[in-house]
Amino acid sequence: MSLKNDLYLRALKGEEVSRPPVWMMRQAGRYLPEFMELKKKYDFFTRCQTPELASEITLQPLRRFENDAAILFSDILVIPQAMNIDVYMEPNKGPVLPNPVRTASDLDRVVVPDVNDSLSYVFDAIKLTLEMLDNSVPLIGFAGSPWTILCYCVQGEGSKNFDKAKKLCFSDPQTAHDLLQKITDTTIAYLKAKAKAGVHAVQVFDSWGGMLGPEDYEEFSLSYMRQIVTALKDEIPVVLFGKGCWFALHEMAKTGASALGVDWTCSARNARYLSGGQITLQGNYDPSRLYSPAERIKKDVKEMIQAFGKDRYIVNLGHGILPDIPVDNARAFIEAVKEYA
Amino acid sequence: MSLKNDLYLRALKGEEVSRPPVWMMRQAGRYLPEFMELKKKYDFFTRCQTPELASEITLQPLRRFENDAAILFSDILVIPQAMNIDVYMEPNKGPVLPNPVRTASDLDRVVVPDVNDSLSYVFDAIKLTLEMLDNSVPLIGFAGSPWTILCYCVQGEGSKNFDKAKKLCFSDPQTAHDLLQKITDTTIAYLKAKAKAGVHAVQVFDSWGGMLGPEDYEEFSLSYMRQIVTALKDEIPVVLFGKGCWFALHEMAKTGASALGVDWTCSARNARYLSGGQITLQGNYDPSRLYSPAERIKKDVKEMIQAFGKDRYIVNLGHGILPDIPVDNARAFIEAVKEYA
Repeated sequence: MSLKNDLYLRALKGEEVSRPPVWMMRQAGRYLPEFMELKKKYDFFTRCQTPELASEITLQPLRRFENDAAILFSDILVIPQAMNIDVYMEPNKGPVLPNPVRTASDLDRVVVPDVNDSLSYVFDAIKLTLEMLDNSVPLIGFAGSPWTILCYCVQGEGSKNFDKAKKLCFSDPQTAHDLLQKITDTTIAYLKAKAKAGVHAVQVFDSWGGMLGPEDYEEFSLSYMRQIVTALKDEIPVVLFGKGCWFALHEMAKTGASALGVDWTCSARNARYLSGGQITLQGNYDPSRLYSPAERIKKDVKEMIQAFGKDRYIVNLGHGILPDIPVDNARAFIEAVKEYA
Repeated sequence: MSLKNDLYLRALKGEEVSRPPVWMMRQAGRYLPEFMELKKKYDFFTRCQTPELASEITLQPLRRFENDAAILFSDILVIPQAMNIDVYMEPNKGPVLPNPVRTASDLDRVVVPDVNDSLSYVFDAIKLTLEMLDNSVPLIGFAGSPWTILCYCVQGEGSKNFDKAKKLCFSDPQTAHDLLQKITDTTIAYLKAKAKAGVHAVQVFDSWGGMLGPEDYEEFSLSYMRQIVTALKDEIPVVLFGKGCWFALHEMAKTGASALGVDWTCSARNARYLSGGQITLQGNYDPSRLYSPAERIKKDVKEMIQAFGKDRYIVNLGHGILPDIPVDNARAFIEAVKEYA
């Protein structure tokens, strides 16, 4: 069955389009009142692990706005959970991993799981969501980058600088690399199974890549993302998003990824230049700029499309939407793209 | 009286040197056992506000290592304190401002103080420190950038994204600009008084500049730093350090600043290119890389000097030193620069 709206997939292929596609990072989530209702009833991982809830949350934003893609509601930390590393979500704090991996012996208990067993709920959620989408728009699957997953596994919680994670990498690089390889092997199997379950593209989030300098980024992050792209790209388009990773866009563009996400500190002009000018780019509106009045948002979005160009471009935020953004401001963002046509 | 070691000031002037000067951001601080002893006895602002303590802490690292400059022990948040905004330092958390500025009416209670009155303890500390230094090395004074100070004044505490600060800027820009101008006026008077008290150079820390996109950076941060440089540069060399502000290096270089600090995500080559190739640069070793073995640190520092070039360059970290760095690793960093000669 062909998709009714394949704008997103055509942008990933670099085809000419009448207007760029638009979706919003974490579009399913905390800024929607209907999401907050579900949040009151079910805890975080129950929402992730119950296919009916995950697919319902995935579809919520599409009932309000005409997004050109859906992204499966889930979390990057389902991977360490499946690898036998406990993860809890603490309200008003975020993820907590009570038994972090900090030594070679800690690594012994970390497994590369059979994803079809331990993460079957994700593939069930994909199948259910695809039924509900009824070929309206493509469905995006995602995973964290191995480096970003390592950050949580070692630090044990969110952090401003992930000093404990970097300490492991720089004082005991062998253990860091062994952990990164286990995460990479799991992530490849996971994304292949997602592709098999039917998602149309996958995005790898390197949320904490910008904590590393260029050489350390190559060693501890990009070399593992490259393995993922190489393993997946003949089956499904892969999008790499590295927050703060402007310095690596040139190398990221050479991995075989279909598109690169950029954040708002990297202008359209710099992003096109640094990525070599050929690859599709995605981004990059400052999520805080959605606090602006609706008219300003619309003006900014139109200027952003002009700066990136309508082709080889996917309109998005430069990071996830903030929880207290008014729904009307999110609507203005989406509508501005439709008005561009 | 001329300085016995004026390497740092010569690098700021762009003069040829036999080796680059070196100092470490927050070199006076938490990684030194003798600092931790004082910390047990006196709370944070007592240490800042007591000239004998501030000058003692300033000199502690110089007794261990041959740094080429001293930086006065103080804090960027003495400015909001002097402007009638309460600031407390909460152990294991950081700064807390219990009455943040979030509306136009909140701004009424914010004053532009007579710095010679409210911040006289800083100028007394400078005079005492200069006596103790006895013309051995130059003394650096500093302030936060107006944008970075606004971040704390509005958010009320540290933050991963300073969403409340950005919300004020984007939803009520007039109030944000009025606050920024008050901070700027205070900062100019403060840095002029520091120059008069005898510091040899001043550095402006824009720690949170990298939270803004290029256009917002110009509007909410750089335009105010430009006012500071314009007001100060004929009296004293000014160094601008913006963490994550690679995208603004070109404009920062045109302000009249004597040098620009860069962080470790911006390679020497990118930093020279982006800043126009003429201005002195300072940085940019990843503070977490000091967790590496001493031999690796020495190798990295030598490569860093080769990459930046020995002239128009000041060896430093790309941000502040972390509290659990072994003293011997800090020593390896300093020694590598001396061995380069």
